[in-house]
Amino acid sequence: MLAVPALTITARDAGSRARAGVLRTAHGEVRTPAFVPLATKATVKGMLPAEVAALGYDIVLGNTFHLFLDPGHERIARLGGLHEFMGWSGPIVTDSGGFQVFSMGHGTVADEIKGRTPHGGHRQGGILAIEERGVRFRSYLDGSERFMAPETSMEIQAALGSDLALVFDECTPLNVPRDYTARSTERTHRWLRRCLDWHHEHGPDGQLVYGIVQGGVFEDLRLESAQAVAASECDGIAIGGSLGAEKAEMHTVVDWTTAALPEDRPRHLLGIGEIDDLVRGVELGIDTFDCAMPTRLGRHGMVLVPDPGRRWRVDLSQARWKDSDEPLMDGCPCPACALGLTRGYLRYLAHARELTGMRLFTLHNLAFVERVMRRLREAIGAGTLAAEAAALRSGAAP
Amino acid sequence: MLAVPALTITARDAGSRARAGVLRTAHGEVRTPAFVPLATKATVKGMLPAEVAALGYDIVLGNTFHLFLDPGHERIARLGGLHEFMGWSGPIVTDSGGFQVFSMGHGTVADEIKGRTPHGGHRQGGILAIEERGVRFRSYLDGSERFMAPETSMEIQAALGSDLALVFDECTPLNVPRDYTARSTERTHRWLRRCLDWHHEHGPDGQLVYGIVQGGVFEDLRLESAQAVAASECDGIAIGGSLGAEKAEMHTVVDWTTAALPEDRPRHLLGIGEIDDLVRGVELGIDTFDCAMPTRLGRHGMVLVPDPGRRWRVDLSQARWKDSDEPLMDGCPCPACALGLTRGYLRYLAHARELTGMRLFTLHNLAFVERVMRRLREAIGAGTLAAEAAALRSGAAP
Repeated sequence: MLAVPALTITARDAGSRARAGVLRTAHGEVRTPAFVPLATKATVKGMLPAEVAALGYDIVLGNTFHLFLDPGHERIARLGGLHEFMGWSGPIVTDSGGFQVFSMGHGTVADEIKGRTPHGGHRQGGILAIEERGVRFRSYLDGSERFMAPETSMEIQAALGSDLALVFDECTPLNVPRDYTARSTERTHRWLRRCLDWHHEHGPDGQLVYGIVQGGVFEDLRLESAQAVAASECDGIAIGGSLGAEKAEMHTVVDWTTAALPEDRPRHLLGIGEIDDLVRGVELGIDTFDCAMPTRLGRHGMVLVPDPGRRWRVDLSQARWKDSDEPLMDGCPCPACALGLTRGYLRYLAHARELTGMRLFTLHNLAFVERVMRRLREAIGAGTLAAEAAALRSGAAP
Repeated sequence: MLAVPALTITARDAGSRARAGVLRTAHGEVRTPAFVPLATKATVKGMLPAEVAALGYDIVLGNTFHLFLDPGHERIARLGGLHEFMGWSGPIVTDSGGFQVFSMGHGTVADEIKGRTPHGGHRQGGILAIEERGVRFRSYLDGSERFMAPETSMEIQAALGSDLALVFDECTPLNVPRDYTARSTERTHRWLRRCLDWHHEHGPDGQLVYGIVQGGVFEDLRLESAQAVAASECDGIAIGGSLGAEKAEMHTVVDWTTAALPEDRPRHLLGIGEIDDLVRGVELGIDTFDCAMPTRLGRHGMVLVPDPGRRWRVDLSQARWKDSDEPLMDGCPCPACALGLTRGYLRYLAHARELTGMRLFTLHNLAFVERVMRRLREAIGAGTLAAEAAALRSGAAP
């Protein structure tokens, strides 16, 4: 944790909470607002580090839970830490593992959190016990019993040597009673304290620690949580957990939360990355976002296009593109677009599950999202965010 | 077919049949001897066209059989031909589809041909009938009945617009009686005639046609076949079929064959690409080689290293590399080696089946093979092939 704020705000939008700035970390600066590509298992899937940087990305996100189970944080530490291990010399944020641990416990929490699959309540997956001390669970890799406490998560992230660590939280799903959410959020606050205490004692110099605001879809719980996290000495604040069943509700939850956050600390919105959500999040004062969307969609033949009517995406694996001589998108600098490859060819690669297709679509999607973020950053600086946001929402090419 | 020879020989080795030269095609020149990476389904798996070229490769090989079944040669023709379809502007060779069609008929012919899996005789796979007219078989994609005759293969390759087409042959497996091989080889010669006749009438201007020498492991059949193919007006000559159960036998079969081939036509060795086989093949006067080995091995975590005792390969997915801080190889310009990534990290990527690993290993293996070929080319020009071949055989880094 740092004595001085990690974020320098260089421009503010007059008509919204949006701000542009520079987030300083031990491995360099992040221009904000920024999207953070996932490097879940110590690599952005299919991409070389230099390619991620060349697209304009300053920072990537490694996954504490997966790296803990395999290859193990101690092994990564012996091999020089996560930066050296994966050959990425820029900033790295690591999530806490809370989301993944509780995903197992809450069944399809990943879907529930995004409101996609309503469930009646809890189901026990790989979780053996959720206790005040921490969580016991079985490894999805070998069935071995593992334990993760707030201190464990911080210890793993310390060993990984990430620039930004996230505190360990319980990620409560959408469809649980308010009472469960309230108790869970209070425990998350106690765990925040334990994380910060561990980090104060043992954490690496220069590693920033982000607290996490929980509270589900309940305004008072979100406000309480925002205040509790803001009252701690964390360097930045992340917004996590269930953000609602629909986009509008998610935007409302983020609105409540950022309204209650201090101005001087960086804010991260966890697991959100659709184009309209990025635009709205920036307006609401979010500095960084992470999401599997651009990379995961790409691996399944889905590519981003400036078309809000289709949620900015086209499924190239569909038969309708078989004979198409259309390019993917005009004006995009990614290899598929720059080479003028036809949708007919790209459809063939997607349908045949060719590695080259997964890679081309990942490159395209990451290029698309980076250019959206760049336009938003530049618009904040130029005082034109309202017009830029309207243009992007209505389908302007980034 | 061309009036002038496609190959210009620029240097000959004094102590062997090796020669270096330039193969001229409608889409540019190929520096020989050369390895041809597979672009089976209109892409070198995981690689962008510019990356393949940047490694030093002049030419890639597309697969007639697979492209016929999906997306179909007519569709590729409508989308501008194979070069434009896949975004590769350099030379392309297409195989005839014979190997794949007969692989289905002969069971595991792919293994048998390389002597890996001895079988007692024929098994019927997807083949419905092998007739003088051609072969009826079922598509492995949708079970539909398809037919491929020599003329069909040439028509497909004409539609694809490849620079080098291979004639349709029966690829006889290793473990069939001499009598079957003799009859099959004679049919291959009749099919050669039909292919050349079709191409003479309908083939695209500037497309080179290679005949294929068959004859199994029988010296007299190989000689007869070499003479029959050489007597035709084909532009180049490929060596196919069963080359023996062991490397030494394969080298002997190639030795018989190239001794009987005319000097002025380019020679291609089908499906061969291990390091010692490339070295020996060059000494025996082969100009071009293709093989799935470097790319396929890479996708399975196997990387090439200068170590003849381990067949020039290391299996990175093995647990022994878990804690290794060794680099993959010194002096290699590929990204994995240039970044100094540890075998520990690469093992993790291989074990987790990460796309990035498949890509890094493919890049490394293709870089390795290209540098072997470059050293052999340069050594022929410099009159130092014997020393160079000895060095590579004994484990010198390429």
